[in-house]
Amino acid sequence: MGSAARGTWLAGDHDLDIFLSIPEDGDLGEAMEIARAIAPLHEERYAEHPYVHAVIDGFDVDLVPCYDIRDPSRIRSAVDRTPFHSRYVSRRIGGLEDDVLLLKQFMKGVGVYGSELRTGGFSGYLAELLVLRYRSFEGVLMGASYWRPNEKIDIEGHGSAVHGDPLVVVDPVDPKRNVAAALTLDRMAEFTTSSRCYLADPEMEFFLPPMPASLTREVLAERMRDRGTRFILVEFRAPDMVDDVIFPQLRKAEASVRALLEREGFAVLRNDVDVSTRKDGKLARMLFEQLIWELAPIKKHIGPPVWDPVHLQRFVSGNALPITGPYIEEARAVVEVRRRHTKAVDLLRLELPGLSLGKHIGASIRSEFRLYSGEEILEIDDPSLREFLSRYLNRSVRICRRVCCRCQ
Amino acid sequence: MGSAARGTWLAGDHDLDIFLSIPEDGDLGEAMEIARAIAPLHEERYAEHPYVHAVIDGFDVDLVPCYDIRDPSRIRSAVDRTPFHSRYVSRRIGGLEDDVLLLKQFMKGVGVYGSELRTGGFSGYLAELLVLRYRSFEGVLMGASYWRPNEKIDIEGHGSAVHGDPLVVVDPVDPKRNVAAALTLDRMAEFTTSSRCYLADPEMEFFLPPMPASLTREVLAERMRDRGTRFILVEFRAPDMVDDVIFPQLRKAEASVRALLEREGFAVLRNDVDVSTRKDGKLARMLFEQLIWELAPIKKHIGPPVWDPVHLQRFVSGNALPITGPYIEEARAVVEVRRRHTKAVDLLRLELPGLSLGKHIGASIRSEFRLYSGEEILEIDDPSLREFLSRYLNRSVRICRRVCCRCQ
Repeated sequence: MGSAARGTWLAGDHDLDIFLSIPEDGDLGEAMEIARAIAPLHEERYAEHPYVHAVIDGFDVDLVPCYDIRDPSRIRSAVDRTPFHSRYVSRRIGGLEDDVLLLKQFMKGVGVYGSELRTGGFSGYLAELLVLRYRSFEGVLMGASYWRPNEKIDIEGHGSAVHGDPLVVVDPVDPKRNVAAALTLDRMAEFTTSSRCYLADPEMEFFLPPMPASLTREVLAERMRDRGTRFILVEFRAPDMVDDVIFPQLRKAEASVRALLEREGFAVLRNDVDVSTRKDGKLARMLFEQLIWELAPIKKHIGPPVWDPVHLQRFVSGNALPITGPYIEEARAVVEVRRRHTKAVDLLRLELPGLSLGKHIGASIRSEFRLYSGEEILEIDDPSLREFLSRYLNRSVRICRRVCCRCQ
Repeated sequence: MGSAARGTWLAGDHDLDIFLSIPEDGDLGEAMEIARAIAPLHEERYAEHPYVHAVIDGFDVDLVPCYDIRDPSRIRSAVDRTPFHSRYVSRRIGGLEDDVLLLKQFMKGVGVYGSELRTGGFSGYLAELLVLRYRSFEGVLMGASYWRPNEKIDIEGHGSAVHGDPLVVVDPVDPKRNVAAALTLDRMAEFTTSSRCYLADPEMEFFLPPMPASLTREVLAERMRDRGTRFILVEFRAPDMVDDVIFPQLRKAEASVRALLEREGFAVLRNDVDVSTRKDGKLARMLFEQLIWELAPIKKHIGPPVWDPVHLQRFVSGNALPITGPYIEEARAVVEVRRRHTKAVDLLRLELPGLSLGKHIGASIRSEFRLYSGEEILEIDDPSLREFLSRYLNRSVRICRRVCCRCQ
């Protein structure tokens, strides 16, 4: 199964998927037995079903039991769908394999290839369907140049309604499913932009961009100083789970922390998260670049409308000795009171454990987290952190200044 | 005419309004001649019509020509309406004069008396109508305790629809007119709050509050330092016009300047305006208390959605060497660029003259303005400024902590 089986296999890719299909009324356990026998040196893994992973002659081989189902509407798990995808593509892709390879390498080069939730990009199957739809590599780029959010592609004309995703590609073998469900709006936007740029200016670098070098400690220090902002780094042990579980939670936690900072007046310029793997487990990082990291020790506290006497009196009693007020503004009682946290790091140190950050991330932060600010961050001697900071500071997408004449 | 004629004249008030009414088809010029003859030492003033102002035996006497109109729908200017108001109140107020006096003094004490646009409070006629509606001083306070925005009072049951004002009191003699049109939402809210408080705790101070003392330079300095914020003061010559023209313009200019500051990231805690009269004309002041007055030299510049290639390419060309980017966020191109003004005072110094601040204020600021920040403000030796700053720092409305049992 997979790209190896349909000749759309990118050089450098060493994954082989071998499916062991058993009759619909059969026993997956028997297929697992066969898998174990094929690869005596293996590791058992688990997605929706268990499967066997082994390294054979330098290839990462997955031996995946699945049911041999005739009617795709009776699929039991995602792996049962794969043979349908493979058959659908194999029967139609003849003569377009090179276009698929070009498209996949292009997507890889511009950073939108990979449907895991960490990337939120295009899967291999999605790339194949796009080539089937637009009939060539350049055809896909031309088509993508015109995409808008809520774009819909329905090759087989199933006409089924899938809503809410930025791009909807109706699965030809399972019309209720959106093949592009994992694609984020920004990956889609990046692909559209890169497609337009490539057509205007078809450079080799789109396929093979220069490897981004990690900045040295000195350059990092200089770049951070020049920005004049203050960086705050939160480090904690990432829950022991696959990236597809960690990343959505981490992004949600990042948004909650940012909301807390901004709610208290500590404006954030930008923020990002990272997970790096180490010998003793995974380390999660949240980085916040603060435009404001210290505030005057006073703040406005806005109370209820004066038309609500019970809450008004409660508010006034609860703020008995304000610095100024109470006074009335836009028909609400207002007091000016002492600000609890004048520094963003103090706010995080005290409020982070109490924040609702999702089950696993929350538990991990409550057990332990480290907080670094400004210069302290550069004292951490860890190549994965330098890589993360370099990526953060160099963040950039190629947007050409010439307008492509073919896509206007 | 006026309160003197109807026995609702507050002690300390030295204004007398004498109307010289001429037939509807007569000539106002003749009435002016008579006014000039009555008070040989006079000054001619101008509202909608010219009138004569004179000081006679220590009284400020206005001699106002008006038309003697029978049908109020044929009124030509505001002064023509006054005799109708006077007649309407005189015929009905008998026995309630003391209640009107209490109410006016109460309104004065809590700072909501006066319908000029500087105050935005209650006029004398409005106070009289409220007493006629609620039948006593305490009745008015009880009624006002229950007011909500868009409250409507229609004594004569005209049923006419006046919308949009916080309080609508249909004029008994001119149903299309809202007697409370000049009342602001906050003055109304303050009156409601004070009414409730007085009923819970009827203290003499509501009528005769202690005169607020101006703080000394030393106390001002200490109070401002304690707040930890940064004050910015803009001074300029106020246009040579009555307060009713200046104040609405000044409030609008104040809001524009605040919006400019906040748009650029300089958060404002609070702000206020003042006009003081001096020998050489009027001086206008705008005061901004900054939570943020200095920012990092970088900012995010958010461009068009990537789906719009023409504007996208223009944006990228116009930001050719950003500090970071372009990158894509929420499907828009974003660059991080150098911030033009890192200090709020620099921003104001350069951008204030170009801001749209209303005809008269704008012209005055373009011709000259002075900008003071922090300690500099305290070096200005002017009692009217100290008074303004004291009022600003002591801003407070009496909101009692006990809930009034009669208005729950």
